[in-house]
Amino acid sequence: MTGPSAFRTEDLPLAPVDATMFKEGMSRLGAAVGVVTTSTANGPVGFTATAICSVTDTPPTLLVCLNRSASVHPDFDRATTLCINMLAANQEVVAQLFGGRTAMVERFDGSTWKTLRTGAPVLSGAALSADCQITERLSVGSHDILFCRVLALEFSDDAPALAYHRRQFHSLPACVGR
Amino acid sequence: MTGPSAFRTEDLPLAPVDATMFKEGMSRLGAAVGVVTTSTANGPVGFTATAICSVTDTPPTLLVCLNRSASVHPDFDRATTLCINMLAANQEVVAQLFGGRTAMVERFDGSTWKTLRTGAPVLSGAALSADCQITERLSVGSHDILFCRVLALEFSDDAPALAYHRRQFHSLPACVGR
Repeated sequence: MTGPSAFRTEDLPLAPVDATMFKEGMSRLGAAVGVVTTSTANGPVGFTATAICSVTDTPPTLLVCLNRSASVHPDFDRATTLCINMLAANQEVVAQLFGGRTAMVERFDGSTWKTLRTGAPVLSGAALSADCQITERLSVGSHDILFCRVLALEFSDDAPALAYHRRQFHSLPACVGR
Repeated sequence: MTGPSAFRTEDLPLAPVDATMFKEGMSRLGAAVGVVTTSTANGPVGFTATAICSVTDTPPTLLVCLNRSASVHPDFDRATTLCINMLAANQEVVAQLFGGRTAMVERFDGSTWKTLRTGAPVLSGAALSADCQITERLSVGSHDILFCRVLALEFSDDAPALAYHRRQFHSLPACVGR
């Protein structure tokens, strides 16, 4: 193959990509599962997210997407720091607590938390925790993208990670020996 | 737990987060594996990426991060469209081809490609292909973030997805019956 002419163009009419079709497609986009937290005057807050990715190592930066209609949005809009806790495979219950309608105080019950540099809640036993300063915000459609400069980092050498794909939780790696 | 005062603050000095430590941490951030392609006057080009995430469904938008020092950066800097092909678990060889130093023309050999709406190469057998218009670019440190409005979407109902975690490829789901 040497150029675009070698490609076959579909003759079938293409379905328009509406929100329903997009969500169905995105369910195929496997991702690790994180709980993003911050500390407020009224106590700790946090939410479950899969739209998290590494941006650059110079300076060490991650991004996380947050729906502006989420109940926690005002808290994170005011926040200057946050912690991105990527869950271990055995922390599925934490993902469910922070992804549902559970009262905020109950979300933090039952897990052990500490702080590193910023004061944002760091989940013990997570596969990876990145304690961050929020350096930039960008609104795209319904969501805000928070750019997060990593000030402290903690990770596990043996915890399998929790992943989400096709609307189910999985473990990475899932099979012993892989 | 009712507030930040309930958190335990680490007494140990924190290691500064340099690029090496950040990369080691990011190897714990499991992600699906994509090959991002576009069509140019000199033929198709593409690269392997894991820094891909869904941003919003209104309008349907994905983002992908690209190192400005990558050999394909000038092509994607000029491009107005691209296709994000999330690989199926049996397409590990495609991830390796597009992630290495293989000549561009050879990267496209050995796989079947078509086009949908924009003319960017769409990989047959991928778990998910999002054919997109690039709507915005943002530079953060060493990388550009390309915001991609999804114009056409194709996905498989049965292909397990390729994931990358701890510097190894995995399948999502990995175990039959999960």
